[in-house]
Amino acid sequence: MPDPTSPPPSSAPHVMWGGRFERPMDPRLDRMNRSLPVDRRLWREDLDTNRAWTWALEGCGVLTADERARMLEGLDAVARQLAAGAAAGADDEDIHSLVERLLGEAIGALAGKLHTGRSRNDQLGTDLRLWTMRALDELDALVAALGRALIARARTGVEIIMASYTHTQRAQPVRFAHWALAHAWPLARDRARLAGARTRAAVLPLGSAAIAGSGFPVDRAALARRLGFDAVTPNSIDAVGDRDFALEACFAATVLSVHLSRLAEDLVLYSTSEFGFLALPEPFTTGSSLMPQKRNPDALELVRGKAGHQIGRLTATLTTLKGLPAGYQKDLQENNDALITTLDTARDALGVMTGVVDGLVLHTERMRAAVDDSTLATDVADLLVQGGMPFREAHAAVGALVRAAERRGVTLREVPAADAAAIAAALPAAVAALSGPEASVERRALEGGTARAAVERQLLDAEVRFAPGSRALP
Amino acid sequence: MPDPTSPPPSSAPHVMWGGRFERPMDPRLDRMNRSLPVDRRLWREDLDTNRAWTWALEGCGVLTADERARMLEGLDAVARQLAAGAAAGADDEDIHSLVERLLGEAIGALAGKLHTGRSRNDQLGTDLRLWTMRALDELDALVAALGRALIARARTGVEIIMASYTHTQRAQPVRFAHWALAHAWPLARDRARLAGARTRAAVLPLGSAAIAGSGFPVDRAALARRLGFDAVTPNSIDAVGDRDFALEACFAATVLSVHLSRLAEDLVLYSTSEFGFLALPEPFTTGSSLMPQKRNPDALELVRGKAGHQIGRLTATLTTLKGLPAGYQKDLQENNDALITTLDTARDALGVMTGVVDGLVLHTERMRAAVDDSTLATDVADLLVQGGMPFREAHAAVGALVRAAERRGVTLREVPAADAAAIAAALPAAVAALSGPEASVERRALEGGTARAAVERQLLDAEVRFAPGSRALP
Amino acid sequence: MPDPTSPPPSSAPHVMWGGRFERPMDPRLDRMNRSLPVDRRLWREDLDTNRAWTWALEGCGVLTADERARMLEGLDAVARQLAAGAAAGADDEDIHSLVERLLGEAIGALAGKLHTGRSRNDQLGTDLRLWTMRALDELDALVAALGRALIARARTGVEIIMASYTHTQRAQPVRFAHWALAHAWPLARDRARLAGARTRAAVLPLGSAAIAGSGFPVDRAALARRLGFDAVTPNSIDAVGDRDFALEACFAATVLSVHLSRLAEDLVLYSTSEFGFLALPEPFTTGSSLMPQKRNPDALELVRGKAGHQIGRLTATLTTLKGLPAGYQKDLQENNDALITTLDTARDALGVMTGVVDGLVLHTERMRAAVDDSTLATDVADLLVQGGMPFREAHAAVGALVRAAERRGVTLREVPAADAAAIAAALPAAVAALSGPEASVERRALEGGTARAAVERQLLDAEVRFAPGSRALP
Amino acid sequence: MPDPTSPPPSSAPHVMWGGRFERPMDPRLDRMNRSLPVDRRLWREDLDTNRAWTWALEGCGVLTADERARMLEGLDAVARQLAAGAAAGADDEDIHSLVERLLGEAIGALAGKLHTGRSRNDQLGTDLRLWTMRALDELDALVAALGRALIARARTGVEIIMASYTHTQRAQPVRFAHWALAHAWPLARDRARLAGARTRAAVLPLGSAAIAGSGFPVDRAALARRLGFDAVTPNSIDAVGDRDFALEACFAATVLSVHLSRLAEDLVLYSTSEFGFLALPEPFTTGSSLMPQKRNPDALELVRGKAGHQIGRLTATLTTLKGLPAGYQKDLQENNDALITTLDTARDALGVMTGVVDGLVLHTERMRAAVDDSTLATDVADLLVQGGMPFREAHAAVGALVRAAERRGVTLREVPAADAAAIAAALPAAVAALSGPEASVERRALEGGTARAAVERQLLDAEVRFAPGSRALP
Repeated sequence: MPDPTSPPPSSAPHVMWGGRFERPMDPRLDRMNRSLPVDRRLWREDLDTNRAWTWALEGCGVLTADERARMLEGLDAVARQLAAGAAAGADDEDIHSLVERLLGEAIGALAGKLHTGRSRNDQLGTDLRLWTMRALDELDALVAALGRALIARARTGVEIIMASYTHTQRAQPVRFAHWALAHAWPLARDRARLAGARTRAAVLPLGSAAIAGSGFPVDRAALARRLGFDAVTPNSIDAVGDRDFALEACFAATVLSVHLSRLAEDLVLYSTSEFGFLALPEPFTTGSSLMPQKRNPDALELVRGKAGHQIGRLTATLTTLKGLPAGYQKDLQENNDALITTLDTARDALGVMTGVVDGLVLHTERMRAAVDDSTLATDVADLLVQGGMPFREAHAAVGALVRAAERRGVTLREVPAADAAAIAAALPAAVAALSGPEASVERRALEGGTARAAVERQLLDAEVRFAPGSRALP
Repeated sequence: MPDPTSPPPSSAPHVMWGGRFERPMDPRLDRMNRSLPVDRRLWREDLDTNRAWTWALEGCGVLTADERARMLEGLDAVARQLAAGAAAGADDEDIHSLVERLLGEAIGALAGKLHTGRSRNDQLGTDLRLWTMRALDELDALVAALGRALIARARTGVEIIMASYTHTQRAQPVRFAHWALAHAWPLARDRARLAGARTRAAVLPLGSAAIAGSGFPVDRAALARRLGFDAVTPNSIDAVGDRDFALEACFAATVLSVHLSRLAEDLVLYSTSEFGFLALPEPFTTGSSLMPQKRNPDALELVRGKAGHQIGRLTATLTTLKGLPAGYQKDLQENNDALITTLDTARDALGVMTGVVDGLVLHTERMRAAVDDSTLATDVADLLVQGGMPFREAHAAVGALVRAAERRGVTLREVPAADAAAIAAALPAAVAALSGPEASVERRALEGGTARAAVERQLLDAEVRFAPGSRALP
Repeated sequence: MPDPTSPPPSSAPHVMWGGRFERPMDPRLDRMNRSLPVDRRLWREDLDTNRAWTWALEGCGVLTADERARMLEGLDAVARQLAAGAAAGADDEDIHSLVERLLGEAIGALAGKLHTGRSRNDQLGTDLRLWTMRALDELDALVAALGRALIARARTGVEIIMASYTHTQRAQPVRFAHWALAHAWPLARDRARLAGARTRAAVLPLGSAAIAGSGFPVDRAALARRLGFDAVTPNSIDAVGDRDFALEACFAATVLSVHLSRLAEDLVLYSTSEFGFLALPEPFTTGSSLMPQKRNPDALELVRGKAGHQIGRLTATLTTLKGLPAGYQKDLQENNDALITTLDTARDALGVMTGVVDGLVLHTERMRAAVDDSTLATDVADLLVQGGMPFREAHAAVGALVRAAERRGVTLREVPAADAAAIAAALPAAVAALSGPEASVERRALEGGTARAAVERQLLDAEVRFAPGSRALP
Repeated sequence: MPDPTSPPPSSAPHVMWGGRFERPMDPRLDRMNRSLPVDRRLWREDLDTNRAWTWALEGCGVLTADERARMLEGLDAVARQLAAGAAAGADDEDIHSLVERLLGEAIGALAGKLHTGRSRNDQLGTDLRLWTMRALDELDALVAALGRALIARARTGVEIIMASYTHTQRAQPVRFAHWALAHAWPLARDRARLAGARTRAAVLPLGSAAIAGSGFPVDRAALARRLGFDAVTPNSIDAVGDRDFALEACFAATVLSVHLSRLAEDLVLYSTSEFGFLALPEPFTTGSSLMPQKRNPDALELVRGKAGHQIGRLTATLTTLKGLPAGYQKDLQENNDALITTLDTARDALGVMTGVVDGLVLHTERMRAAVDDSTLATDVADLLVQGGMPFREAHAAVGALVRAAERRGVTLREVPAADAAAIAAALPAAVAALSGPEASVERRALEGGTARAAVERQLLDAEVRFAPGSRALP
């Protein structure tokens, strides 16, 4: 986003049009219209697109081989200038105008042939898709890395028993590894969505020109191959107004961010003095300017807060598209910053969360202490069922036992046998047969359960799924 | 959504718990907590889940073969009651409680064994996913039907030339078929997203119980096969708190709705007196209670307006999930109505838009009249390029020609040759070489262009893609 | 919202137009277009509007006194029918059509004069505003009631010391009363916003007709007085397309809901086993279908989840309005359900939260136990400042002391004096001068602080602000 | 927003804490945590807050008069540095840290006393509110200016008759002045909301410290007076976590932006070749890089698109607040950029729209031409009513007349009298009595109507309401 405090330019911007205009752009519009502060992020992609287009223009006879060579050299020179920061402070309307201007400064009038047969509509669409494809690849690798960080924690936490929670209330004992993997599997789904978004992004709009298709018979399939696209868009009107790929990339990154916010929330809770299940790595916490004792989970709160703004940007992007006529409308320009910021934000949040997970210090005794007897109530009911009692009756009986225990201020096991028997004859035996949390977790040995063997199987599956170099599965 | 005007129930609702409670639920909470008015939509799926679970309980020895048979008969009886409307006005907490209560009325105490080894957490997840899979299948078929309707219009509009628009300003001539197909291709992408959502939905959470996995060794793979799922969830904590499938289904339906809003917007514009390109079918318009002459495009406006509320529901669903701890939290209940309404809304909007497209009456002469000479300005520039002028110069020259024509109040062709030559020597010849709109569209023969051959190829591709029985491609 | 499972009507709906139409409405459009299932909530307001309009028509000579009297009697008869449920299942297009139809059945052809000089555009605007004014009044009273419930808890909690939290980490000791009032003051701001929304709602659109103003010289000021509006809209085009009042009411109710979600979050945390600061009233909790011991804070989670959907509806309403042409567009219809549901939801959430607050059981010893020595670190730094040390140095010194204590596994006070002196010479004396939490809270006696006197002043202010019959202040 | 492409800093940032920390911040957190790139916009306000705080510290004896004077001089020196751009590229954590560091460089150890008795929590709240108050004042002035621009257009358009539209279909004739004023009145409501937001912003949190109130007895009322606040916050916990003022400012600016989007949409339509009601001022249009003839309404499309992103930012801000515990949480930091960008965006959009409105060129003959006979259909019905026919019958009769005209391809007036009489005996006379559009608009002379006298009254009211120096009315 442009710094809104910067003064408007003193004169009209460099633009790629103007022949039919008599008066310069108003500075108020210029400030709002100029997209260079956003789209300069696309400079590498714009140059790639221009290089491919240069070859295409030679292919259909607009450029000679010599002109093509000089054009490519000029684009290389422009690339060096942009790599050195030439976009900063430039007063061009957008990255395309800047590149064409710099190219003109480098190779003269020949630069004026570059934009033959195309429009910024298909050019920007191509740049954006290319940038998105690359950003999605980077995200996928970072998601896998966080997956591996969680798996590594899980590996060392198979023997650690903790309370699990529903409704933020203690539920049943689980292995710490099971909890850590519970935050890895959503990432596998994220990878599938990122891959879907990439598939839809990798369709080339170049050649669609402004709306009706290029007036020159460029070889679009060759363009696609050269730029790494899988296919070409089938309809020029659709191609220049379509931003589905951006919506889908934003959505995938937003769901990912929501997943990170849920992991962050668990960690905020578990690192309170009250839960005390774990300590966050110091380099991912900050202090207070007033209270000297504070070590705050800022990393987690920022990740959680950023998820809110990811949602806002997705909302904005959808809202901006709603009710637009087919084809290119300038409203679409507003979405570019949201796309770039959304993917950047997901990238940064992944890095931070990976650092946090890597550095967690577990307090296993506090975890174990939270597994109080009440978390075994379901096991008592299950024991009653094994003795033949319908579950609904067993549930009611154990519920009454819980109430009796609460009234006396004791644990389940401490309710006098006579009182328990008064609730249900089979109850004292069931309570007596109850072993500890280990037995409870081992009862849950089916696939996806928290028994040791089930968790070990999960770990193996997850390791394959998130291995370095792995690809997303559907 | 429950009718908020209905009085709260006079007594506590039927619930599946309560053993440990001493006081009944407050009526204010009951009104907010009761989900039956929403989740009764899931009754078929709840019965399917219960049937499958009955087999699973037999499989792990909780039920005898005879009990399994009686349970299945009881469930069939309940199905008949629900099909006859038994859910209306029932005072149960949710569909699961209602089914268990009716089952108890049908088969007695045996009904109390049904809920063994599971929780409403994994049961509801299963019901919702099953409902979503079915709803997505229905949506996919309706999307394909709208695609075919557009293709049918395109078939008859290959020879109709109209102005295309960018920025709602006349741009270049295109074939009407090209415009109609521009609204079909987004639907192909929608089908891919719907298919992705279905893939992620078809993973079975049943067996995850409340959070730690079932205490009974049910065969989850067999459950999945019986219910038509492709796989089972790998982690019970993740399984009960995961709503990615709902997010993804809502997103796919929302993008689809945004596409319909863009088609609607084009049709609103084109059916104004001012554009006059087409007339809407009367049965999809309504009148005014005051102005007798009015025939308003209400169908289109409602579709457009509903897209806004689809966005709101997606936003709400994401917002509700943000920052939730892992595992089940009651907040998730709020999302069910949004999921159901979103898919229902997309379904209804597809039906309406298909009806509208089927009934459009084209005014081809008005379309053709909008193709004024200015829409051929790019062709003049392209002709200059073919004569060797760099495009950037050609663009400037034609821009100056446009300005000259505007100042004189004439068309491009009517600018005196001397004036044109003063702008650029090659200009008068280029203008003279300009033929009509047909030549312009035929210049755009590359893939995705608006030339006849390119459009015919598009039509063939689209017909395959949207054929009855076709499946989504990525 | 209409039940989407209901079959479409077999024939066209009753409508207030149709003269220029040859073919009936398509059932697919009917299902989408029919607003009666939503706007029947406005039946009282529609009748009030009709009664006022009847007087206005007499005022400008369209009705005789006798006709006016018969019309009013007819409307009373219709009111009785609607009160008895006549809207349920009716097949009219909307509440206005239903009322006109029932009126016709009651009084014959005279009913056909009711709609003279107006349109449903200005009529619906009037109904909606009237309904909103009434709903806002009800909300304001419920907000004040929740405020009083919080004040009542605060009254009894002046002497209770608890830890306050920032970043979910223990910060400094505060009085429980201070915490309770921290959730009351946001409600005072909510009341101001609700009042602002009501002011903007109380402007009468009736008389604007469809868009250009009524063709009959009705006395709009008299209409406004009769219906309880403060003013009349100044421009008919603006009047029929304006939904600012709905946006503002939804926004005020949404911010209120976000406030309730923050109170809910505090209570979810404080009622965990780990915090244990309080217990929720049993009638506002629910159980688990599987785990017999569970008592879950469903009331709080639902309130928190509903806040997410309030945000979604506000988003949807804004999105639907964005980019609409001036004047009435059918898209506006979609917003009515969102408005009604938003205000209903806020109403229900207020009721639930008031019940929860009324029934909280405080565990004061757990609150006090959370006030460990680290929460007094700021006081040590302040004591150093009083001895002349710049705060930034004092902060660093106490920070080092905290680190030393942590390394030794002791509290601040237990760090050996020699070690403390090695950090800063003044430190041992400052630590020695430290008294307990009471002294800490009493140091904060400025306005808005947590000292007893400051809290007592707050209580008095709050009691006035939320007194029964009180009005919102800006 | 920080440029995400910039490399992370090579070392840890300058922070105001750290005494209890052993390891430096991780660069990944630093990149995410550092707020200086956003909050440097608040530098003027931070200095004002610091100056006021300096006086307050003298007031409660923490500073001597001499120290106070040196501190103020130091702050002036810092102000000069910041005005000269010292914040650019600084590696401090936030604006507060930067100011304290620069102050230390200017006046030495005394700077370490500045932060006594406060926290960044109350300091940032104060800075943000002060910035918001100033930004809202600026917005209000710009809204009034746009109001005056519309009024000026209306003044010259009282005699211009145009078609008004509902559902984008021709409705009834209105004066152009009436249309222009229809876009001014929403701005009057915007001013009321901006004023409400300002009232709620002007409450001082300073003195609340981190959460429990300052440990030093600063005079908060004096601070409020010095800084231009109307009151002080009543509760320190509420004060540091409250962002209602930001929500309300964002909401008011978002509704304003939606209003501008509706004006933009009307102008996009009216400036098409097909409507042709007006031409946009050239300096607020741009061209195409491909199509030389294009002059696109980019200013309007950008304003419309930006409204979508305003909605997204409001959504994000609400979402981020939902479910946060009371008091300060780091998530709040994410909202600052959204607040600033939202008010900046509204400011820029107002400037652009004022320029557009000032420069509109009206094509009055095209406006008049759109007032075809069908727009008088309501007048025919009204004439029938004046003859005693109930409106509902009259509506049906004219509807049938419209249908008859349409079938014959003629206008209403051209339907043969016999045919008209066959529909209703009174119809031919009513049609014959019909005069032109002027009579139609003059029939609508009630308040808010489009008759000349009513419009003149509106103009006078609006001129007062939007006069330079005027204040918002409720």
